[in-house]
Amino acid sequence: MNRKIKNALISVSDKKDLKNILNVLRKYKINIISSGGTYRSVKKLGFKCKEVSEYTGFDEMLDGRVKTLHPKIHSGILFNRKKVTHKKQMMEKKFESIDLVIVNFYPFKESLKKTFNNKKIIENIDIGGPSMVRAAAKNCEDVVIITDKNDYLDFIKEIKKYKGKTSFNFREKLAAKAFSLTAFYDSMIAEWYNQKLQIKFPERKIFFGKKINQLRYGENPHQKSSIYLSDLKYEKSNLEQLSGKDLSYNNYNDIFAGLDILFSEKKLPCTVIIKHANPCGAASNKSSFKSFINAQCSDPVSAFGGVVACNYKITKKVALEMNRTFFEVILAKGFDKAALKILKKKKNMRVIDISNVEYRSDITTKIYDNSFLLQEKDQTIFDKKKLKFVTKTKPTKNEIRDMEFAFKICKYVKSNAIAIVKDNATIGIGAGQQNRLDSCRIAVQKARKFQPKKLYNSIAASDAFFPFADGLKTLISAGVKTVIQPGGSIRDKEVIDAANKANIKMIFTGVRHFNH
Amino acid sequence: MNRKIKNALISVSDKKDLKNILNVLRKYKINIISSGGTYRSVKKLGFKCKEVSEYTGFDEMLDGRVKTLHPKIHSGILFNRKKVTHKKQMMEKKFESIDLVIVNFYPFKESLKKTFNNKKIIENIDIGGPSMVRAAAKNCEDVVIITDKNDYLDFIKEIKKYKGKTSFNFREKLAAKAFSLTAFYDSMIAEWYNQKLQIKFPERKIFFGKKINQLRYGENPHQKSSIYLSDLKYEKSNLEQLSGKDLSYNNYNDIFAGLDILFSEKKLPCTVIIKHANPCGAASNKSSFKSFINAQCSDPVSAFGGVVACNYKITKKVALEMNRTFFEVILAKGFDKAALKILKKKKNMRVIDISNVEYRSDITTKIYDNSFLLQEKDQTIFDKKKLKFVTKTKPTKNEIRDMEFAFKICKYVKSNAIAIVKDNATIGIGAGQQNRLDSCRIAVQKARKFQPKKLYNSIAASDAFFPFADGLKTLISAGVKTVIQPGGSIRDKEVIDAANKANIKMIFTGVRHFNH
Repeated sequence: MNRKIKNALISVSDKKDLKNILNVLRKYKINIISSGGTYRSVKKLGFKCKEVSEYTGFDEMLDGRVKTLHPKIHSGILFNRKKVTHKKQMMEKKFESIDLVIVNFYPFKESLKKTFNNKKIIENIDIGGPSMVRAAAKNCEDVVIITDKNDYLDFIKEIKKYKGKTSFNFREKLAAKAFSLTAFYDSMIAEWYNQKLQIKFPERKIFFGKKINQLRYGENPHQKSSIYLSDLKYEKSNLEQLSGKDLSYNNYNDIFAGLDILFSEKKLPCTVIIKHANPCGAASNKSSFKSFINAQCSDPVSAFGGVVACNYKITKKVALEMNRTFFEVILAKGFDKAALKILKKKKNMRVIDISNVEYRSDITTKIYDNSFLLQEKDQTIFDKKKLKFVTKTKPTKNEIRDMEFAFKICKYVKSNAIAIVKDNATIGIGAGQQNRLDSCRIAVQKARKFQPKKLYNSIAASDAFFPFADGLKTLISAGVKTVIQPGGSIRDKEVIDAANKANIKMIFTGVRHFNH
Repeated sequence: MNRKIKNALISVSDKKDLKNILNVLRKYKINIISSGGTYRSVKKLGFKCKEVSEYTGFDEMLDGRVKTLHPKIHSGILFNRKKVTHKKQMMEKKFESIDLVIVNFYPFKESLKKTFNNKKIIENIDIGGPSMVRAAAKNCEDVVIITDKNDYLDFIKEIKKYKGKTSFNFREKLAAKAFSLTAFYDSMIAEWYNQKLQIKFPERKIFFGKKINQLRYGENPHQKSSIYLSDLKYEKSNLEQLSGKDLSYNNYNDIFAGLDILFSEKKLPCTVIIKHANPCGAASNKSSFKSFINAQCSDPVSAFGGVVACNYKITKKVALEMNRTFFEVILAKGFDKAALKILKKKKNMRVIDISNVEYRSDITTKIYDNSFLLQEKDQTIFDKKKLKFVTKTKPTKNEIRDMEFAFKICKYVKSNAIAIVKDNATIGIGAGQQNRLDSCRIAVQKARKFQPKKLYNSIAASDAFFPFADGLKTLISAGVKTVIQPGGSIRDKEVIDAANKANIKMIFTGVRHFNH
């Protein structure tokens, strides 16, 4: 039913655009109840307003901790306008109806940016505000709840349309929004506490996200999609787009896969090229130019139209080389002025500065329908002290460093994963196969196709043990001379024997890196 | 600081185990304040108790909607015990401290099971409870907040240890739990409203989950992990395990991939075998036995140790066949008694009844660090009316039906995906490659290895268009005679020409099925 508004309670920390709504309230002779800063603002803007304490007859106390938590306020919001007993009780107490509640919460999130003082942060947990918002949203049958100044305009339209009244449909939508807000607000507080107390797997886990963009579509054109940000600190993504079309769902998906690998390289300039969420090339090198060239050479066919992620500042030289082909997205830790000018020429290519991107969470989550799997991120490569040198010939220190690179890249390839590497650059990646032998074959085929000479004396990494010797033999036949793998198969002996027979070097890490 | 408790406020819908805690409160001379059903229970158990209305001097009103929303209650919880001004105000008002709050909420979720009457559901949205819980949790510096009867025992230990007091560490943990609960509670309400109003991409999206199991480990042994259930209706997973070891993270991941495919086949008995989140075999057949055999023949090497998902009841004949090799998990819509007896013999094999599993959500989500991508599920295959018959030779109705099966399976293979199919059974799957040509090659290699004869006159499906004719030519050379793909490449003409030259049949669906 359409409802008339008699009294409005306003308590907002964000006082922008208040005047617009106050004008309309005055027009429809709606009384305003308010307190503290909002009360002063309303008066200053020249509108009539009653203090909450005057309205309830109860002095605000405890530095404002208790002011609206009063039966007169909550009865006014919560009573059922259609129930005779409710109306009678309200009359007896001389309580009036409160039909519009406009409330913002204490800025909990903002307090996290301003201070590390826990007591000050906790002081910013709003108690009275959420109580009123929840009460008003529960009773949206009769009450309007506004939690966002962006809804002022819709409210003004609505009340003008219905001459001082509002429709149930309108009130219900605002109630849904209000409960999303209270859930979101408490999720942030819970997350802050869980982080503080290092609780990674709480009994009840809540993810909260604020929509930052509606995407053109999802993984495919017939799927609608949006991207959300879930952060206790930031209000927007740290991907700073400098040029090009809007990012698509698949762009984001590839970007995320690329950043994961990029963050694992902390010493050298590194380039990673992603296609369909798998790396098709990755290379580290003292020269950023060479790292790009090497990453691209790994599989130039797949690299076309891929996402390129660079942990360095892009120079003119690199930009010129990049522009010789087409990439959907270029990610880098900054761009020289001349480089940016060159890259901006391709209007379809998205150019993104990732200087401010950093990891926020040490947990990954996979959601499937009404279940989700929570796990710690795979943040280790291997422990040098626990390496097992299982073959007769042992690798040198330098070789172990190169093997570490191979194993690290392999970790980010979808399982089953094989990465063949030469000079800190992939030359063949076997991704996403249902058995290890197939991954070995694909990795070898790629290397043979694009850089066959580099196969000689190359290094291969496997994300999990070889269940049989067949996969290893495929790698050896192609020229691989050093192998890094977790070990742990019941047929490890058979695999070690094959390695020794071919006189190659193999180490076991004891650490598996499945990634699906 | 350790804190003594003077007054406790108790308001619980779950009255189990109340006696244990009441005994301890009496021992330490703690006064009890309560109302309604809790008040009656406490009295009945033979303990002293003061009614909330007697305590506040304010009669409960509006059928209990307003009783604890009173300054005397909230001041008692919220005042800062160390602040002189706060203590002075409390003295002036003759308000006392409330140092322990034990509250359960109205059972909102349970009400969803009991009724479809929205008003009754909304009546079960608790307002007073969450207000007290949030106030007590905010002030955990001084107040104990218990929201779960499973914490009674810890509380009893704590208060005995500190002789009537509690430690800050203890109170803070309970506060973290309390905010998780209020966030969870409001998330459910928000989700209920969003479903009701068909809001798929709300401004603020909140996922809530209740831990149902701590897993042995995550994707790899060095990662901790747990599985959560996020459901407005159920309290536990609908996967009913009948036998075998506990499910692992990777089991769940493969199960979810398998169910997705299985749900897409509604007519015929269908078997899907999953390994590393990709199908390595899928087959539909009037005979469930044949569907299993065909699925396994597609890639018997990869199938070993996989997850088998069946949309039918498993008979003795199928069970005997299954037991000839090893699978990690068998999922089926029921098991004959004899079949179950056979399958249970393998102690390591998890046997799971999926009869009660159903889709709950039409949204999928990918979480990456502090971002997440929300999209509608890919719930279409193609629109028969929009098929384009692009080659000179056109497929028959029966062939189109077979092509639909091929395209459907292809949809669930990780992109880039190629599925080669014969008689409603995959014979070669090319998964997860960074370019389409490689996926074509892998699919052909698999078919050649295991069932080369079936390649003749087979059907191939591609999840996205062929960017060049090379991939298609690879399929044609292997014996493929019918191809289904979305179309839409700038080189479609080149691809159609190649198809016509080889005199094969090809249709364009206009629908892409990327899946990463």
